[in-house]
Amino acid sequence: MIIELITPIVTRGVRTLDDIEPLMHSGLKITHSLLDSGPSSIESKFDEALAVPDTLKLAMQAEISGASAIVIDCMGDPGLHACREAVSIPVLGAGQTAMHLANLLGNRFAFITVLDRIRPIIEDLIGAYGIREKYASFQAVDIPVLDLSRDGEALNVALAQKALRSIEEDGADVVVLGCTGFLGCAEAMRAALRSAGHEVPVVDPIPATIGIAEALVKAGLSHSKRTYPAPGAKPVKGYELPTGASS
Amino acid sequence: MIIELITPIVTRGVRTLDDIEPLMHSGLKITHSLLDSGPSSIESKFDEALAVPDTLKLAMQAEISGASAIVIDCMGDPGLHACREAVSIPVLGAGQTAMHLANLLGNRFAFITVLDRIRPIIEDLIGAYGIREKYASFQAVDIPVLDLSRDGEALNVALAQKALRSIEEDGADVVVLGCTGFLGCAEAMRAALRSAGHEVPVVDPIPATIGIAEALVKAGLSHSKRTYPAPGAKPVKGYELPTGASS
Amino acid sequence: MIIELITPIVTRGVRTLDDIEPLMHSGLKITHSLLDSGPSSIESKFDEALAVPDTLKLAMQAEISGASAIVIDCMGDPGLHACREAVSIPVLGAGQTAMHLANLLGNRFAFITVLDRIRPIIEDLIGAYGIREKYASFQAVDIPVLDLSRDGEALNVALAQKALRSIEEDGADVVVLGCTGFLGCAEAMRAALRSAGHEVPVVDPIPATIGIAEALVKAGLSHSKRTYPAPGAKPVKGYELPTGASS
Amino acid sequence: MIIELITPIVTRGVRTLDDIEPLMHSGLKITHSLLDSGPSSIESKFDEALAVPDTLKLAMQAEISGASAIVIDCMGDPGLHACREAVSIPVLGAGQTAMHLANLLGNRFAFITVLDRIRPIIEDLIGAYGIREKYASFQAVDIPVLDLSRDGEALNVALAQKALRSIEEDGADVVVLGCTGFLGCAEAMRAALRSAGHEVPVVDPIPATIGIAEALVKAGLSHSKRTYPAPGAKPVKGYELPTGASS
Amino acid sequence: MIIELITPIVTRGVRTLDDIEPLMHSGLKITHSLLDSGPSSIESKFDEALAVPDTLKLAMQAEISGASAIVIDCMGDPGLHACREAVSIPVLGAGQTAMHLANLLGNRFAFITVLDRIRPIIEDLIGAYGIREKYASFQAVDIPVLDLSRDGEALNVALAQKALRSIEEDGADVVVLGCTGFLGCAEAMRAALRSAGHEVPVVDPIPATIGIAEALVKAGLSHSKRTYPAPGAKPVKGYELPTGASS
Amino acid sequence: MIIELITPIVTRGVRTLDDIEPLMHSGLKITHSLLDSGPSSIESKFDEALAVPDTLKLAMQAEISGASAIVIDCMGDPGLHACREAVSIPVLGAGQTAMHLANLLGNRFAFITVLDRIRPIIEDLIGAYGIREKYASFQAVDIPVLDLSRDGEALNVALAQKALRSIEEDGADVVVLGCTGFLGCAEAMRAALRSAGHEVPVVDPIPATIGIAEALVKAGLSHSKRTYPAPGAKPVKGYELPTGASS
Repeated sequence: MIIELITPIVTRGVRTLDDIEPLMHSGLKITHSLLDSGPSSIESKFDEALAVPDTLKLAMQAEISGASAIVIDCMGDPGLHACREAVSIPVLGAGQTAMHLANLLGNRFAFITVLDRIRPIIEDLIGAYGIREKYASFQAVDIPVLDLSRDGEALNVALAQKALRSIEEDGADVVVLGCTGFLGCAEAMRAALRSAGHEVPVVDPIPATIGIAEALVKAGLSHSKRTYPAPGAKPVKGYELPTGASS
Repeated sequence: MIIELITPIVTRGVRTLDDIEPLMHSGLKITHSLLDSGPSSIESKFDEALAVPDTLKLAMQAEISGASAIVIDCMGDPGLHACREAVSIPVLGAGQTAMHLANLLGNRFAFITVLDRIRPIIEDLIGAYGIREKYASFQAVDIPVLDLSRDGEALNVALAQKALRSIEEDGADVVVLGCTGFLGCAEAMRAALRSAGHEVPVVDPIPATIGIAEALVKAGLSHSKRTYPAPGAKPVKGYELPTGASS
Repeated sequence: MIIELITPIVTRGVRTLDDIEPLMHSGLKITHSLLDSGPSSIESKFDEALAVPDTLKLAMQAEISGASAIVIDCMGDPGLHACREAVSIPVLGAGQTAMHLANLLGNRFAFITVLDRIRPIIEDLIGAYGIREKYASFQAVDIPVLDLSRDGEALNVALAQKALRSIEEDGADVVVLGCTGFLGCAEAMRAALRSAGHEVPVVDPIPATIGIAEALVKAGLSHSKRTYPAPGAKPVKGYELPTGASS
Repeated sequence: MIIELITPIVTRGVRTLDDIEPLMHSGLKITHSLLDSGPSSIESKFDEALAVPDTLKLAMQAEISGASAIVIDCMGDPGLHACREAVSIPVLGAGQTAMHLANLLGNRFAFITVLDRIRPIIEDLIGAYGIREKYASFQAVDIPVLDLSRDGEALNVALAQKALRSIEEDGADVVVLGCTGFLGCAEAMRAALRSAGHEVPVVDPIPATIGIAEALVKAGLSHSKRTYPAPGAKPVKGYELPTGASS
Repeated sequence: MIIELITPIVTRGVRTLDDIEPLMHSGLKITHSLLDSGPSSIESKFDEALAVPDTLKLAMQAEISGASAIVIDCMGDPGLHACREAVSIPVLGAGQTAMHLANLLGNRFAFITVLDRIRPIIEDLIGAYGIREKYASFQAVDIPVLDLSRDGEALNVALAQKALRSIEEDGADVVVLGCTGFLGCAEAMRAALRSAGHEVPVVDPIPATIGIAEALVKAGLSHSKRTYPAPGAKPVKGYELPTGASS
Repeated sequence: MIIELITPIVTRGVRTLDDIEPLMHSGLKITHSLLDSGPSSIESKFDEALAVPDTLKLAMQAEISGASAIVIDCMGDPGLHACREAVSIPVLGAGQTAMHLANLLGNRFAFITVLDRIRPIIEDLIGAYGIREKYASFQAVDIPVLDLSRDGEALNVALAQKALRSIEEDGADVVVLGCTGFLGCAEAMRAALRSAGHEVPVVDPIPATIGIAEALVKAGLSHSKRTYPAPGAKPVKGYELPTGASS
């Protein structure tokens, strides 16, 4: 099975092979792509707006080239709805998948992310997904995406501190890492929470979403074409999109 | 006061001066623009994805050139959030504005639009806007946007029939015209409903949204920069956006 | 266009010409009336109960004498539903209108008012209006309505402090001035919030509601007679109400 | 124990001793009062508006004269909030009490009442009471309050038919008689539903509410003065209210 | 009238005659039973799981032996749904009843209980009962059920402190004693709150629920057999249940 | 990896090796167990009550004997909460998992099951899980669990008919097979819906839940011990439970 991971930014080197290889196994190959056109990172709907057209193109290409499923490597789920219209293979967003998985693990979840500014973006998603009742806390470490790798230790300390607050002050039972750039931070956070007396799961979105994508493919499930009907063929100016996609 | 109306499609002749002129008055000039890049009409999130980048560019240009407010001429509110991040002048979406106005006029509203396929798109907006409790009915006349002008009479008959069903079967108290291409159909619908014994307001989104935009400008109000912070300056590939915008 | 502003109290001098004149313009005349029977101020449902019959009478008289719309000058929207039954011209409540306008400007709103005691009254309205998901914070400055003019400076300080708390502790993105007696305080509050680093809109209910009323009249919209049917003619004891109203 | 039943209309003979006596027992005396000023029946918020001031006066008098609790004899709960502010003894509304009792008896309730026109009034209450999730169906027999006694047989047939629809089409599990004028119709309805194969409770609001009032008094419980604080003493014009009430 | 109180634990001496006798009167006899099989106290769903089968048996026996109603003496309402299926006489859970009664007394309620660990159990009930909008606060005194009688004074102090926090920090208007082992603590709590300036009702679940059970019996009401249909007769292994119950 | 499938009934032969073997692969062994004590099938909360104690015992034994995860083979999720308290390995309920998975595939889901009588049981779960906004339709084929194998063809016809209604009348976008006894019916239903023009996913709960369980184990995730703390050791009468479980 091939799962295509689309990181919807143009910056090289942020998402690396080191991130992806551990997630592969004999039955699963993960291919990875970045955008040619778009923002260097995603921290706003403005950034998303510029990321979505190329994300769409990559999703359609992935289906044509035989991928079994697609994962969008961003917690705001940019282009998720449009990609599901454009292709028939399962498309999962790291945000929607991680939050729903969290709801299988505990009563209410916390969303711990990079910057305060994305709070309304995430709360709009939570409203659209219909899961407001399970949303306990939003916390941000106040570190921009492209600076996350600067000081891993400081990042882990900040994440643990915010997670602790979400549990002890806001009543969270499960933590969702709210940026896919936090890949690999779950273990340290879980340890920090455990040492503070909290046995709480920490959902690392990319491994979790890849796992769900595999499960969907094995179960022969994909998104509903009643919710995500193929866009009709119609004239478009200024964008060249692949043809021959299932839609 | 200048209000910029952005029709987020590339097709010329769908939105015309005849539509806009009646809305102007001594104190209000309405400028209008269409996209250079994007879809010929908007009937999916796929279409929206291709419409948003140019919509963003036009919004930024409008602010630079001195517009007092911006109205996005589509019920799915494409690019609304991103445009609000990008500019400081009020930006209104015809969908959000018309639905909120409807909630000032009656208990529950019906959304009558072109095609069934946009139902999940609208219900996601309703969820994100937090107004599910006031949403009574979704109906579609099953006519694509670009065919709306083909047979005005048939359109009015279909709209009235769907509105009638939304009132008598689904308990709607107010009707929202769910496509800005329905501009001007409200009067005929109101008459048809009245003759069926229902004194029900019909919200025609563009005149209503222009009116609210004027009211906001007069009241010195614009959107919250806490919800819609300006996107930071960051490298972008493949898009050229105006500089000097307030953000 | 004539808009009738009904201040539903008997106290003279609280709402003055100085408040109203700035809101008028060539196309808009605002007429104003107070109650003959009712409370000296509104700070409870008890007060509202005694204010509504005369408010109803004034609304019916306004329609008969040719007003284009009616605005009820109190955030608890006393008599709003009944007045909409009694007349056909648009009737807006400052509370419902300001809260819905706030929802067009940001993610969640704060309601800052005079006394803690009205919290359940406002939360009942928010529940009935179906906008609980957008309600972030309730704050009160603990100054009775009739004392608001005593010390304008202290009032502004208290309002800014409460607004700041609603933003920084409760996550509000927009502030609604929760008493129409706060007319004119928005500018000072906006400045105080800006100096604290928050670019947040402050909705001053009366100017905002007058503006929406104008927009409704221009758009030819009024409330739904399906939600607010005219009360049938029936014997009434102890009240004399105008006859000849549209209902 | 004395419970005061306030029927908030001026029409004599609609609520009679025959209705009340069966509800009394050795430990319970029920006193009854009607309005001097107000509407002949309640079928709108307009009617409620004119009913509330005198209802308030009667509630305050009842407390002064030693009643243990007060029941408002109308499903729209007119004046409930204001009366609770004005007195310290328990005040129950037939609407709120019957709907909450229904929620102790089954999954979702139907509200079967006189006229379609009160639907938005009831749905506002349901929203304010926070029980929308348990509300399954609204049905009306289309008979005005003052005509209910005209043809008891026809009324029972109409009620049973509407109840049947609410169960079989709308999924209701419990029926709330939605007008206190239906007093005594529960038995016939229950029999009709049973013969149609549905073992469904029918809540007759007045007996049920009297019973809950007794239970509250025995348990030493009354409404919260934090939700319903006593109105401060302030000048009032045009109304004479009792003094010496606990508030 | 006979009401059967089932305390769903095996420990003798926790619920005593001293608790029950004051609730009886000429018209009401309360019978009491404990489990033969089950946990020594209920502080988890694990405990509930082991308590429910015997609770079911006792409920069926109570109906057979002529009880008029059944009250389950635990705030988690263990076995409530199953018992309602098994019998036709009213069955009330102390949790559901107390929370609904609280909603008749004020705007939002606090649930003050023994241990933090039951929070998700209670929040699941609140979600299932559809009353999340009225739920303000959860507080725990951190004393296990079987230790409650150790130090009555300390318990009252802890309860008052938690109640105070729920009112002043979380905006609660009514307090629900969240463990039936708190029987009798309401008076002290009410006094403590009053001395802190809060006139707030405190619902003591057992007396309140007994009162509601009486009211239901008098009103001839029981739960809906459409929500709680009798379980069909089917082979069961390992449990001996009474036969001849109405179901 | 070993996943333990617990079918919480005592009837042999309903869940067979033929069902389970196709779900196993090189990396996954599925062990299966039935109850010694409990009901012959689960169609009520009464049945669940008798199934849970032994389900709990089997779950604890499975953890002790080295299972990596546990799946409860019933859509009502009997004992799910208690089992999660009792063990530390992931425990998934077929109902909760299938409904959440459905929410990753489309806008709103339909729940198609055996009997109408379980509707309130499922709606309580949906309320507790906080996903009411995504629930579109409940349908039942009116065939008891133990008769499902009688006539496979008739079952498929009935399922397709109910699914069709849920889509065309209730607006469902995804179908959840609402009884684990429907295992294997998804393909026929999907074909029937496709031939009716609906490209809609059909979630077959057991394969889907096994897949999610595998994904959780691989991701090192289990349920939150803050939501599901281990039950304290306390005296229990009448039940013998395994010792040495992680709790």
